[in-house]
Amino acid sequence: MKVEKTPDEQVISRTPFPASKKIFVKGELHDIEVAMREISLSETKIHNGFGLTEKNPPVTIYDTSGPYTDPDEVIDVKAGLPRLRERWITGRGDVEKLEQISSAYGTERLADTTLDSLRFAFQHQPYRATAGSNVSQMHYAKKGIITAEMEYIAIRENQRIDLVNEQLGEQAGIMNHQHAGNSFGANTPQGYITPEFVRQEVASGRAVIPSNINHPESEPMIIGRNFLVKINANIGNSAVTSSIEEEVEKAVWACRWGADTIMDLSTGKNIHETREWIIRNSPVPIGTVPIYQALEKVNGKAEDLTWELFRDTLIEQAEQGVDYFTIHAGVLLRYIPLTAKRITGIVSRGGSIMAKWCLAHHQESFLYTHFEEICEIMKAYDVAFSLGDGLRPGCLADANDAAQFAELETLGELTKIAWKHDVQTIIEGPGHVPMHMIKANMEKQLEHCGEAPFYTLGPLTTDIAPGYDHITSAIGAAMIGWYGTAMLCYVTPKEHLGLPNKKDVKDGVITYKIAAHAADLAKGHPGAQYRDNALSKARFEFRWEDQFNLSLDPDTAKEFHDETLPADGAKIAHFCSMCGPNFCSMKITQDVREYAAKQGVDEAAALAKGMEEKSKEFTEKGSEIYL
Amino acid sequence: MKVEKTPDEQVISRTPFPASKKIFVKGELHDIEVAMREISLSETKIHNGFGLTEKNPPVTIYDTSGPYTDPDEVIDVKAGLPRLRERWITGRGDVEKLEQISSAYGTERLADTTLDSLRFAFQHQPYRATAGSNVSQMHYAKKGIITAEMEYIAIRENQRIDLVNEQLGEQAGIMNHQHAGNSFGANTPQGYITPEFVRQEVASGRAVIPSNINHPESEPMIIGRNFLVKINANIGNSAVTSSIEEEVEKAVWACRWGADTIMDLSTGKNIHETREWIIRNSPVPIGTVPIYQALEKVNGKAEDLTWELFRDTLIEQAEQGVDYFTIHAGVLLRYIPLTAKRITGIVSRGGSIMAKWCLAHHQESFLYTHFEEICEIMKAYDVAFSLGDGLRPGCLADANDAAQFAELETLGELTKIAWKHDVQTIIEGPGHVPMHMIKANMEKQLEHCGEAPFYTLGPLTTDIAPGYDHITSAIGAAMIGWYGTAMLCYVTPKEHLGLPNKKDVKDGVITYKIAAHAADLAKGHPGAQYRDNALSKARFEFRWEDQFNLSLDPDTAKEFHDETLPADGAKIAHFCSMCGPNFCSMKITQDVREYAAKQGVDEAAALAKGMEEKSKEFTEKGSEIYL
Repeated sequence: MKVEKTPDEQVISRTPFPASKKIFVKGELHDIEVAMREISLSETKIHNGFGLTEKNPPVTIYDTSGPYTDPDEVIDVKAGLPRLRERWITGRGDVEKLEQISSAYGTERLADTTLDSLRFAFQHQPYRATAGSNVSQMHYAKKGIITAEMEYIAIRENQRIDLVNEQLGEQAGIMNHQHAGNSFGANTPQGYITPEFVRQEVASGRAVIPSNINHPESEPMIIGRNFLVKINANIGNSAVTSSIEEEVEKAVWACRWGADTIMDLSTGKNIHETREWIIRNSPVPIGTVPIYQALEKVNGKAEDLTWELFRDTLIEQAEQGVDYFTIHAGVLLRYIPLTAKRITGIVSRGGSIMAKWCLAHHQESFLYTHFEEICEIMKAYDVAFSLGDGLRPGCLADANDAAQFAELETLGELTKIAWKHDVQTIIEGPGHVPMHMIKANMEKQLEHCGEAPFYTLGPLTTDIAPGYDHITSAIGAAMIGWYGTAMLCYVTPKEHLGLPNKKDVKDGVITYKIAAHAADLAKGHPGAQYRDNALSKARFEFRWEDQFNLSLDPDTAKEFHDETLPADGAKIAHFCSMCGPNFCSMKITQDVREYAAKQGVDEAAALAKGMEEKSKEFTEKGSEIYL
Repeated sequence: MKVEKTPDEQVISRTPFPASKKIFVKGELHDIEVAMREISLSETKIHNGFGLTEKNPPVTIYDTSGPYTDPDEVIDVKAGLPRLRERWITGRGDVEKLEQISSAYGTERLADTTLDSLRFAFQHQPYRATAGSNVSQMHYAKKGIITAEMEYIAIRENQRIDLVNEQLGEQAGIMNHQHAGNSFGANTPQGYITPEFVRQEVASGRAVIPSNINHPESEPMIIGRNFLVKINANIGNSAVTSSIEEEVEKAVWACRWGADTIMDLSTGKNIHETREWIIRNSPVPIGTVPIYQALEKVNGKAEDLTWELFRDTLIEQAEQGVDYFTIHAGVLLRYIPLTAKRITGIVSRGGSIMAKWCLAHHQESFLYTHFEEICEIMKAYDVAFSLGDGLRPGCLADANDAAQFAELETLGELTKIAWKHDVQTIIEGPGHVPMHMIKANMEKQLEHCGEAPFYTLGPLTTDIAPGYDHITSAIGAAMIGWYGTAMLCYVTPKEHLGLPNKKDVKDGVITYKIAAHAADLAKGHPGAQYRDNALSKARFEFRWEDQFNLSLDPDTAKEFHDETLPADGAKIAHFCSMCGPNFCSMKITQDVREYAAKQGVDEAAALAKGMEEKSKEFTEKGSEIYL
């Protein structure tokens, strides 16, 4: 057991990305500045161009790293991040600042002086909706209001591809040629996302903006299948190991590499204090599974859980600023026996807690019977539901079975209740599913849950690779993302084996950025492919540094390159270590391209006439362009 | 530049896998023994069973590691592996042993005493078909002959699932319930692969058995879409780095982790000698790209390549025992300008060499014009064609373009010519393809190439993750494997950046085993899912060692587990590091299962009556099964 330790500045990762700077794009409807990352590129040297060069426009990308990667920003981990959204929230005139926190447990912890050394210094005074108000983004959206959050998201999702297209001129045509007829074109004018489109999607329930009024530090983001596919990273200490300091740094670290939301799954001691540190320092929405903490409060005895205790936990966490709650309200009594013949039974921790409670009490769970009261809490803080799949399959043999799909139907019914209260809702999905059975999950989810966003764990496509389940699951995640899943919950290499360390968190996040991006490409998201194209052009032109800088993980790309060819000169070399200096396939293409350009040959048919003459000239010149 | 070094015994990895032994299954038609790996499992302790246990039958798996993992086998890396197939080859009465090697280059190297220190000690005396004979497996298959290789493969592919089914009795029903109506059932009696089925598939061209008569050390394997999906690992030194010793160990290492074939892509000096060491010590078929070596022979000047030189190279390599040749015969003059507007032009090294030759000579390549003569060589040694996709896309933007599909059509025409000569043929495919464009590749390949096996590199589904291209490509590989690709060429984390070291080779192989297995599961291969199910059962029952031993990489699984819970006791603990000892989701399922069993409850409806009474009893007992 490690000693509990709170974070110091120096443990927080905040190096800027190479050749990158933060830029801020202003809103038109609201006084907002949307943070993005701009990667500058070097010039292309034109061959035989007598020193001529071609400029490569900078590439702007979606950035989840928050202020940490901005060298102009002062970071004080003990004070928390700037409260970006506070002005917007109070400006809407429907919240009140509470004199003190409302939960009994939170009050008790606050009074406990033995916890002072662990406590976050800044005393957050919570907001709550005024009596009769509903502060959910869905509520505003249904009323036709475009919030600052919605405009922020519209600008953020576009990633300035308009600018890129303008700068690249003709090339933009090539860059977007895959996207003709995509679903985005149908939904958004010219393929761009507008604030009004964001509003419509939120109003319809097809998208969710996790944005607790008590987490004003978070930068607005959206989860919905007509937007970029998002990823979630799980962190959290456990009874076995890890400290507050480590968990805060893991959260910042996960955002650095691309986590769009963080789930804090802490199960050890000091969950309340750990969460405060994480929320105050997190630029992305935070999710939790409140039943985990509730269980700690009854010393792990599931049958001792009560509605009152759970309710207090919800309020405690809502006032700290948790943006979405996983609630396993779909585990009904009659579904539990459906898991009896499974190979791995119930593998969801929340699901098994509720199953145990149901068996002990022979009652439907308080999550189900008190669902409308939960909705009342959710809308007073704008906490979103993530309706948990407590009966998800834990192995391929259990995939798509009666228990799983019975629960999914119940989650659909609960979604309708949540929407009646204008509470934002996403639906959690599996798990372990072989490739040919993945699509059915998406189809049934859309059918039963009224197109509420789907949020899946993987799915893992085989069970035989513990140690590599980030990969077994990235395959399923990319596919289900393509089919329409809005957010992918990452899996680290440690899944099934142990708690992820920082390296595992990074491996999990990068792997899931790959899956999400592959899905965006397959869906034809208008902002997706230009980064691929810019990197490929850099690769073809041997602009090694640009290739590294445009990649998801510049550090690793550069390190791998340097292992084989460490000299600095190698980074401008017109060859790579695979073929060596004598012959490289990229080089010959330059010959072909030059030839085609000179001949004005646009079509294969036109080539034949000039080929023989060119062939002579080519040989005479020594058959090498780069001598 | 490293010093060239030949292998010693001690560098070769040959530790057996934990809890595993080699078993040998006898043939019925031929006097053969098929090597497999059997993993023994521990017993399940039945809860509240008063010490009762349940046996778990051993799991037999397909094994590519050859004799290296058999402690009873004496390995002499300087003498090479036992010549398993030699008796079968000579027994067919259609080959002659040559007095000396036929190629001019090989003869020259042999005479060069400065190479003596690098030379493989055992002087392999090559075989060749007698005049007028055709020794290809396709030729035998078409004549209705079931060779020893074919029977070996039938037994090998089944992995003794018959035995597993028998031993597991009822459970086998569960294990195979995903497979109802799969394509295998249609093709093979009771879902098992028979020697006659293997023969039919080879005769039709739908499958290939790479089995050069000069590589008798290799264990027969098959590449075809009605068999287990196979993977290839590329190795090979380059002009920049690496030695013979390293490459031989890389080959053995790749087979250890599951490579079904190895491609030797060496481009540095001493390619001829390196290849001899690799072939003599390889239990899996070896492929090469002969044009690489031919290019070295003309000092890297593509336009100096000639048919005569290339022909001599083919014979040189065929007599050493290369099992398949990548030949880029589909790069036609008129296709080259189709690549001019691509972002990354021609990225295939072989393709660009041929393009350069074509441009310089204004002629179709000698690979194309001499194709039938190449067939004559192939059938005299049973070398299989791997028709190279010289114009494959090198980035997403270039995927599925005119150049790529034009070449594919030509490869289809060449396949028909090869089949006229009964030469076995596979077709290479891309490359870089976004998910939504992958299926079209498979469909067009089947359509144009008469169902010859498809052999793809990935495809990579995004370009933005150099350093992680084993993952970007595993997503595409799993999908195209499901769609029908017979063999997947691995991609390592070093792709685009540098030469893979041993760690990279292992990462690439394991990642591709995952992709291939995920595809087998999705295709419903009858031998695929029982390993997943056995591992999942072990996981559920907290049989940690069994979980590690059944995994693709037991070393890593165990190491990851021990990082969080290092104590030996933890490996029999009924909890894992994620939830800690207080509450574990796996435990509650045992409660549910026991309850259902006692009540005889098979259906949800039957539950309600007994639930309340059970609930009382459950609480009275202390609400914990494991106190």
